[in-house]
This record gives sequence, structure tokens and C-alpha cells, in this order.
Amino acid sequence: MKLQILVDMDGVLADVYAQFIKMEYEETGVKLKIDDLYGRKEEEVFPSFQRHVRNKGFFAAVPLIKDSVEGLKYLNDKYNVLIVSSATEFPDSLTEKLRWLNINFPFISWQQMIFCGRKDSIVGDIMIDDHPKNLKTFDGRKILFTQPHNANIRDENYERVLTWKDILKLI
Amino acid sequence: MKLQILVDMDGVLADVYAQFIKMEYEETGVKLKIDDLYGRKEEEVFPSFQRHVRNKGFFAAVPLIKDSVEGLKYLNDKYNVLIVSSATEFPDSLTEKLRWLNINFPFISWQQMIFCGRKDSIVGDIMIDDHPKNLKTFDGRKILFTQPHNANIRDENYERVLTWKDILKLI
Repeated sequence: MKLQILVDMDGVLADVYAQFIKMEYEETGVKLKIDDLYGRKEEEVFPSFQRHVRNKGFFAAVPLIKDSVEGLKYLNDKYNVLIVSSATEFPDSLTEKLRWLNINFPFISWQQMIFCGRKDSIVGDIMIDDHPKNLKTFDGRKILFTQPHNANIRDENYERVLTWKDILKLI
Repeated sequence: MKLQILVDMDGVLADVYAQFIKMEYEETGVKLKIDDLYGRKEEEVFPSFQRHVRNKGFFAAVPLIKDSVEGLKYLNDKYNVLIVSSATEFPDSLTEKLRWLNINFPFISWQQMIFCGRKDSIVGDIMIDDHPKNLKTFDGRKILFTQPHNANIRDENYERVLTWKDILKLI
């Protein structure tokens, strides 16, 4: 029986920070530096967070996290991968996220996708996520993907990774 | 701890048969009778099944299964309800299904929605579904909601219900 790995989208496959910074710049002319955003919540550092994520096109145009395509391909060839994404809070994000996966990760089938509100009823052996709230309720190995908002979290129950190369070293 | 109940959409909350029959009639002038459809798969009785479910608007305009609003409201007040719908096969269905839930079941929050491909990684105590393939892999009490396609299924592991009133008698 293959291990089942739950892989988050935003902050693990999709570089939402890059997308927020771009949108803030286009709207305000202010270019935020990623180094200034460490240790603070996304909603706090991006004043228009709630509006941006509700905008049509936000999730369709999100850039990829470095090495995520090759990394996920490797995991997918070896393990039972499920993409598990918090999405139901933003109705338009659902179809955009699915199409984005189809375009960027064509080796992931529709059978491997879960779009949900909470992740606490989805089972697996390993979870890779940037949000401690999702890892917290997961009953398995917990891998925290570093993003500015979680930089100050210290928790021995999580294995922290900075990059997709780190993930492949661990799994 | 409240029991967790996984409730399917199509064939349990959404009357997809009524919608198929209507669309076939509009296209071909032939009005199929529900009694003639028993014991046969949906794809078999509706020749344009795959095209219909990919049509924009199909899921947005699906009528409700009788008593489903009152029935789900009752369950939702008493138990931990999750709506679990196979949806990722049809990209446009996702956002339509979410909005349909918001309109018809406003007491169901986005935290309670799961749109997926397969349902075998989602846990709960009770599953209500019209597709035996979903009940089969579920580790809990299995309630089969009668629809023409499952009419001939005999399986002692399932409790069969014909209506939402039947569900409330069981749970």
C-alpha cells in the first residue's frame, strides 16, 4: 500500500505571495519586499487581501513555487498524492484552481483533487502545508512549508522545509 | 462529540434526474419517464450525459430533491454535517455547485463543503449517498439514497432510503 501524501496548493505549489505583491504594486505603486513580511499574517501585510482573493483571475494567474512541478511529479510517481486546497471560502477560486492544476500539473488527475473548507476530515500519511491550523488537526507526519506568515512558529510536531528540494530530501 | 454525517449532493440534495429529463426534452422533444430508467446507469439512459454535465448552467439550475432543505436543516442543527460532492471531473460544476448550496442551503457554511474526485479519504460516522462506489470504501454507517441507477443493488451493508423523511426516521 502506497503512502498517501496530502499536498496543499497556496503557499506550497502556488506562489500566492508573489501574486499579492504584484497586485499591490499594480494598484498602489508600492512594491513590498518579502523580507519585510516575515512573522506577520497575510491579511495584515496585504491590506487588500480579502478583495484580491475574491477577484476573478487571482488564482488563475498565480505563479508556481520553485521546483514544485518536478517535486510533485516525483512524489506522484512514487506515492498516492492528493491535492487538498482550502477553496470554498472563495467561490470563483474553485474552477480557477482546478484549471490551474490542469495546466501546470497535467499528471495530477481530477480524482486526486479535493477542494474544501476545513482539512480535518481528510486522511493521509503525510501532510505538506504552510498553515499550522491544517497540520494541527492532521493525524500523520506534518511537514510545514515555510512562508513568511509562519516564519516564527516553533512546534516540534512539524518538520519545517524551505523548498521543494527539502521535501524530497525528507520523503 | 457530535456524529459527523457526510451528505452527497447529486441524487441526494440535487434532483439531477429531473434536470437530465428536462434537458433531453428540450433538445430532442422526447420526454423520458422516470419509471423507464430504473436499474440502468445514468450514462446509459441519457445519451448526452457527458455533454450535459459539462454544460455551463447544468448544476446552477438543478431542482431540489423533495424535503431535502428541511431534512438537511434538521441534521445540521443536531450533527456535524459535511457536504461531500464529486465535482472535480467537471471544472465548471465547482463554482456552480457552491453557489447552488449557498442559495438553497444558506445554513451550510463554506467550512462544511468538500468538492472532490474520490470520496475514499474523507472520514465521518455516517455517509448518505446514491452511489454504491462511494459507500463501499466508507468506514461507517452507509445509507443508500434510492435513485433509478441504484434500484437493483442489493447489499446488506447499506440501509436504503427512498426519501428524506426516511433518512430522518433512521438517524
